[in-house]
Amino acid sequence: MTSELSILAADAQVASRDMVNLSTAKKNKILLAMADALDAARPALLRANALDIDAAKTASLSPALIDRLTLNDSRITAMINGIRFVASLPDPIGKRLSKRIPANGLTIEKRRVPIGVIAIIYEARPNVTADAAVLCIKTSNAVILRGGKEALHSNRAIADAMTAGGVAAGLPRHALQLIQTTDRAAVGELVKMDDRIDLVIPRGGESLIRAVVEQSRVPVLKHYKGVCHIFVNKDADLDRAIPLIENAKCQRPATCNALETLLVHKDVAATFLPKLRDLAARRHIQIRADKPSRAIIPEFDAATEDDWSAEYQDLILAVRVVPNLNKAVEHINRYGSRHSDAILTASASDAKKFLQRVDSAAVYVNASTRFTDGGEFGMGAEMGISTDKFHARGPVGLEELTSYKYLIRGDYASRA
Amino acid sequence: MTSELSILAADAQVASRDMVNLSTAKKNKILLAMADALDAARPALLRANALDIDAAKTASLSPALIDRLTLNDSRITAMINGIRFVASLPDPIGKRLSKRIPANGLTIEKRRVPIGVIAIIYEARPNVTADAAVLCIKTSNAVILRGGKEALHSNRAIADAMTAGGVAAGLPRHALQLIQTTDRAAVGELVKMDDRIDLVIPRGGESLIRAVVEQSRVPVLKHYKGVCHIFVNKDADLDRAIPLIENAKCQRPATCNALETLLVHKDVAATFLPKLRDLAARRHIQIRADKPSRAIIPEFDAATEDDWSAEYQDLILAVRVVPNLNKAVEHINRYGSRHSDAILTASASDAKKFLQRVDSAAVYVNASTRFTDGGEFGMGAEMGISTDKFHARGPVGLEELTSYKYLIRGDYASRA
Repeated sequence: MTSELSILAADAQVASRDMVNLSTAKKNKILLAMADALDAARPALLRANALDIDAAKTASLSPALIDRLTLNDSRITAMINGIRFVASLPDPIGKRLSKRIPANGLTIEKRRVPIGVIAIIYEARPNVTADAAVLCIKTSNAVILRGGKEALHSNRAIADAMTAGGVAAGLPRHALQLIQTTDRAAVGELVKMDDRIDLVIPRGGESLIRAVVEQSRVPVLKHYKGVCHIFVNKDADLDRAIPLIENAKCQRPATCNALETLLVHKDVAATFLPKLRDLAARRHIQIRADKPSRAIIPEFDAATEDDWSAEYQDLILAVRVVPNLNKAVEHINRYGSRHSDAILTASASDAKKFLQRVDSAAVYVNASTRFTDGGEFGMGAEMGISTDKFHARGPVGLEELTSYKYLIRGDYASRA
Repeated sequence: MTSELSILAADAQVASRDMVNLSTAKKNKILLAMADALDAARPALLRANALDIDAAKTASLSPALIDRLTLNDSRITAMINGIRFVASLPDPIGKRLSKRIPANGLTIEKRRVPIGVIAIIYEARPNVTADAAVLCIKTSNAVILRGGKEALHSNRAIADAMTAGGVAAGLPRHALQLIQTTDRAAVGELVKMDDRIDLVIPRGGESLIRAVVEQSRVPVLKHYKGVCHIFVNKDADLDRAIPLIENAKCQRPATCNALETLLVHKDVAATFLPKLRDLAARRHIQIRADKPSRAIIPEFDAATEDDWSAEYQDLILAVRVVPNLNKAVEHINRYGSRHSDAILTASASDAKKFLQRVDSAAVYVNASTRFTDGGEFGMGAEMGISTDKFHARGPVGLEELTSYKYLIRGDYASRA
């Protein structure tokens, strides 16, 4: 298997070097051809997906997982529209980031270039095959896809259609490759090929990501989890806080930017927690609270230490009373996941302290954590949300899938 | 040992969170206090260094290694001046990278922040202790230093003086820590602490770097080697090419940006190679050439396949005749190290192709590869040269030691 994967990675590297010669217009033409090819392949996609669904039912996978696996006409349309949208976005490649003419007389330009070869390792949703591939291709990267075995037929059908459409429009032959083997060892081998692969992006549960990080010699861009906080400061507008918290917790509880832990300043706990109880009752939110909270609202369930770092992705909310802003910041930096955290406050100086001290990708003042999203941030599409602090932090859009290089011109210049 | 290292890393993380509260003025005051403390500690530094030198002589280390280990008054002065220079540089932390007000009504700022905790693993030169630490502190990062065991007394004396001076001026207590154990296993343990350490920078030989990459769960910023090329195109000014090549090969042959392989267009090989032979004779450069070159200049030594990827760091030059620009680019992308490569040409279109297609950090037209350097690029100081394509590429200055975060303000905003 190593030699097959090694050839595949070498082919990807060759393709990535051809990708740098494609103009923006050519890339967009390729993307639109891929969208058209998917549109034309709808019957084949549905047939392939039916094989995966049958196997999933035979294997008694959960209804939730089967739902994630399922393709239907509207989901295929969403994939196609996603590709057309990416084609319409500005191309970051070639953009000049700086130009310097130092005393040595050289002209030094810094420009965005592709990263090279990106491997994407993901789980059940077959739409990732299209979504992730087109972001890589738009940024002139070659992409190696490794999806979950449950979706293999669907992924293959999607990748085949996109490749055929893309190559006919000028995509280098190995710019998009799907790993066909379902052998789990393939991932471990792939992520050791640091001479051929420039970046690995695992998309899935925490255990998948940890396994990739432990084995990889290639840099990994990752999103562990979203344990997001809101801190209700002593001067927060408590009535306006309630609908904001409702939005953060309930709008889409399964997303990574949903609220998981609410911190409440002790001075307003007695006024605020009854309002929270009413919201919890109305929206069926289970509250897991610390002792001081339960002294005020005894019907709240008791929180344990594990609750402070839990990513529930469900209608459950951890609640803790804190004595001051510093303790709120400390709690967030200790238990949080560096994703998205908010303060509700009327104080400009407390807002500034919170923004400075909370070590997270997105830090909010008087806004719901739900806004952390490439679309909401005006980045167009996104590959995911990075909880790393290296290279890309927060939403990973097209710019975050690029590197840069220095282009330097002289007149037969030697260093003094 | 794990528990000691684990405490040290936890202390560094706490210190890194205090570092974000330091103003630029405060950080510069700390840096100047560190420089003054080193100045006052000269006798202690020389005494400690004498212990290392004695041990090195007893262990029969090479004269070159002993020279690298040696501190004297002028080297200490260079360290001190280096710190004062870093204090004088602009502070990248807090700089606004962008500001967006999307349709959702939020104000989204993106600002530079520290990376957090940076571990630096390095070999013999004790000056790295000061040079690397101050770049981290200027950028509000906490730093963990792990030097070579040969320099332990010197490194300890430098770190002790800097810490004492820095802490008296307001540096958080564990912002600068030197690992005292010489146990080799410490590195392996340290680079697995991805919950506490945000970045590892190994500085040393390729085997040290590979060992770190294989073991690390923390992102690694690295410089493998510098196999730099110059391609003499068919329309190059051959007379002006010679002093440029002399500069690239001979000015400081042991540096990573020195020329290692010269590629010559076949159309000018017969005219150019005799000029190269004269240069080689004058500067005592050993030439290792391919067959077509030796057909023209039989006295050149024969190159083997290994020569194409060799980093000689010495007065040796590999020479190959290539049929065209594309083959030159292919050779560089195959055998090079993505560091610094140049074309000598009068053709704007060939220059453009070379700049676009060569996948290296610094790509030159009509200039010596020796210019790849933070100082020459106008970046002030540098930590090294990255041959990665992720996060930082080329010279690693202050900006490259930073991350960013999004600071978002709303008016009790919920996502639609």
